[in-house]
Amino acid sequence: MTEYKIEINLSSSRKQKPSFDSLEFGKNFTDHMFIVDYTRGIGWHDPRIVPYQPLTLDPACMVFHYGQTVFEGLKAYLTQEEEVLLFRPEKNMERLNRSNDRLCIPQIDEDLALSALKQLINVDREWIPNAPGTSLYIRPFVIATEPYLGVAPSGRYKFIIILSPVGAYYKEGINPVKIAVERQYVRAAIGGTGNAKTAGNYAGSLKAQEVAEKAGYSQVLWLDSKENHYIEEVGSMNIFFKINGEVVTPALNGSILEGVTRDSIIQLLKHWNVPVTERKISIDEIYQAQKDGILEEVFGTGTAAVISPVGEFFWQNEKLVVNGGKTGELSKKLYDTLTGIQLGTVPDPFGWTVKVEQQEGSKYTHNR
Amino acid sequence: MTEYKIEINLSSSRKQKPSFDSLEFGKNFTDHMFIVDYTRGIGWHDPRIVPYQPLTLDPACMVFHYGQTVFEGLKAYLTQEEEVLLFRPEKNMERLNRSNDRLCIPQIDEDLALSALKQLINVDREWIPNAPGTSLYIRPFVIATEPYLGVAPSGRYKFIIILSPVGAYYKEGINPVKIAVERQYVRAAIGGTGNAKTAGNYAGSLKAQEVAEKAGYSQVLWLDSKENHYIEEVGSMNIFFKINGEVVTPALNGSILEGVTRDSIIQLLKHWNVPVTERKISIDEIYQAQKDGILEEVFGTGTAAVISPVGEFFWQNEKLVVNGGKTGELSKKLYDTLTGIQLGTVPDPFGWTVKVEQQEGSKYTHNR
Ligand SMILES: Cc1ncc(COP(=O)(O)O)c(C=O)c1O
Ligand SMILES: Cc1ncc(COP(=O)(O)O)c(C=O)c1O
Repeated sequence: MTEYKIEINLSSSRKQKPSFDSLEFGKNFTDHMFIVDYTRGIGWHDPRIVPYQPLTLDPACMVFHYGQTVFEGLKAYLTQEEEVLLFRPEKNMERLNRSNDRLCIPQIDEDLALSALKQLINVDREWIPNAPGTSLYIRPFVIATEPYLGVAPSGRYKFIIILSPVGAYYKEGINPVKIAVERQYVRAAIGGTGNAKTAGNYAGSLKAQEVAEKAGYSQVLWLDSKENHYIEEVGSMNIFFKINGEVVTPALNGSILEGVTRDSIIQLLKHWNVPVTERKISIDEIYQAQKDGILEEVFGTGTAAVISPVGEFFWQNEKLVVNGGKTGELSKKLYDTLTGIQLGTVPDPFGWTVKVEQQEGSKYTHNR
Repeated sequence: MTEYKIEINLSSSRKQKPSFDSLEFGKNFTDHMFIVDYTRGIGWHDPRIVPYQPLTLDPACMVFHYGQTVFEGLKAYLTQEEEVLLFRPEKNMERLNRSNDRLCIPQIDEDLALSALKQLINVDREWIPNAPGTSLYIRPFVIATEPYLGVAPSGRYKFIIILSPVGAYYKEGINPVKIAVERQYVRAAIGGTGNAKTAGNYAGSLKAQEVAEKAGYSQVLWLDSKENHYIEEVGSMNIFFKINGEVVTPALNGSILEGVTRDSIIQLLKHWNVPVTERKISIDEIYQAQKDGILEEVFGTGTAAVISPVGEFFWQNEKLVVNGGKTGELSKKLYDTLTGIQLGTVPDPFGWTVKVEQQEGSKYTHNR
């Protein structure tokens, strides 16, 4: 049992904050960051909060060559009472460790990670925006830092948390987006890394995304890699369909990401007694439902956009409109409820929000 | 038509060179490196050779999060006449650009890349080892350096070349390796990034590799992601089978890497009138051939090991021995010929080797 402190080294100067009314996603970063190092034979060591600063890395570091890296994404919200709320942060830390396992990265103490995150937020509390739709986006990530060109797990890593005040992820806001069903490219295969939040999945998705954007679609809807037939997920969102009063979403099959928002939506729907099923869904089924006029709503779910209604999808040279291209009633209700819970303006029956106390201790007790 | 120079900034101090007799793969780096930057709207700019040094990168740089990166691997050899030979380097630069295309990274002028490589080698010429089996491993790579957390192609990149004097990749040398056929994990899917040389493919392969190593196998033999039935490739090698006098290797299907060594082996075999076919090969076919006693040789091909004979493979709880666990005659002949051509001790009927002239100019003329 070792008791150790998260070292805090405050920045001597503060950056000019961007205008909180016109924040672009993921372009501004706060004054500080959290780092903890891993060295084989020692474990994770030297947790510290330091001024936000560049990393100095040997060009042979394995992250540059073999992509051994994982990340997470979650948000902190400033309530009207000036309280800071996190949304189910323990789920993200659990998923981080599941991703770590898939990528052969050593497990991180989830309590240390959460404690570090809270302390970092406190240090940069003034950076949390309060304009409607804004929040503090939190990006924990791990990179392999051993300078070695062999294909093998790295002996050294850095786990880092950076913070970015953000506006809405999609410029369209809660307005419906148009998505293109992808036929040529594949995001992930069963037995691959699709259910881990790791860099390679995103790198591989850029090409299809680029093609879709050129055709006027903001996102790609991925199909499974085996049969090119079953729906997987969208860009960085899981996907839901409301068909004839029932909500369906692809089951967790090993190749899609287990979204925290997805899980929350399923719980909310069950709480409301709206029928919801996780199962295999073919693109043909969705096509037919649209043709039959029973495809009532389609929406994506993810931390960045929370709920992103889909107003149109493109499949085999056909533009298929959903709900007249408008945001559906259920999508709207889910968005309002979830963002309400996140902001503390709506009751939280599930105990999802976690308050960041201002006196959050800098001591952290740890078994190792 | 712009003529521009590769700026050369020599290091004021030189590192202690490692002993060339006991070099570990990919752990030692020379005194210099090449860098050229890309900025959206400007293109690639400021090509320069500088002292080998750490990179200073914002923690939000996209390479850390979305893995937009590609790399190459090739070797320079020192001949008995103290000449430096590269082996088909233009093939690597072509493949680099094919990988770039898949990863939405802007194309690199292949002539600039080759010229830069030759000049860098000249600067660090003393680092090329001459002990048997040694060479100078060359690692060109591109990383996305824009600090931005959105999933989109980066607006900034660095293309870097580093050099590493290396011994044999496999400690076993030309002795046969044991490989395990992978049933659970998948390396790449059709429509994915398998035929690009990009970080994510390698990150995803670590888990299976770890499991195989624990069971005493040095490499994993990957099967296709659709049917888990057809042979793809091995770790960082393509694979060949000699069955009843005929050599077969999996056809380029979009999910395996188009190896330069693979292509060279196919050309050599054709040159020798040994029947060689690129086609789909199921694991059942190989299993049956082994049972029937007509699986004469199995070998992997790749820059690092050149030829790596396979003495045993593990499939469905069975250990299947190939050629009594010994290096086959054809494997040996291919190894000797190819390494001979690379070292300039055997005639090069294909014009594969490229000499690095000592007076290689530092001026580079470029159309843009
Ligand atoms: C590929 C992918 N799918 C789904 C999601 C949604 O997950 P979450 O709801 O946890 O943000 C994300 C992340 O945001 C993602 O990157
Ligand atoms: C996945 C993979 N397959 C095959 C090869 C062999 O390619 P080459 O012969 O060009 O080295 C490599 C690279 O070395 C590789 O990384």
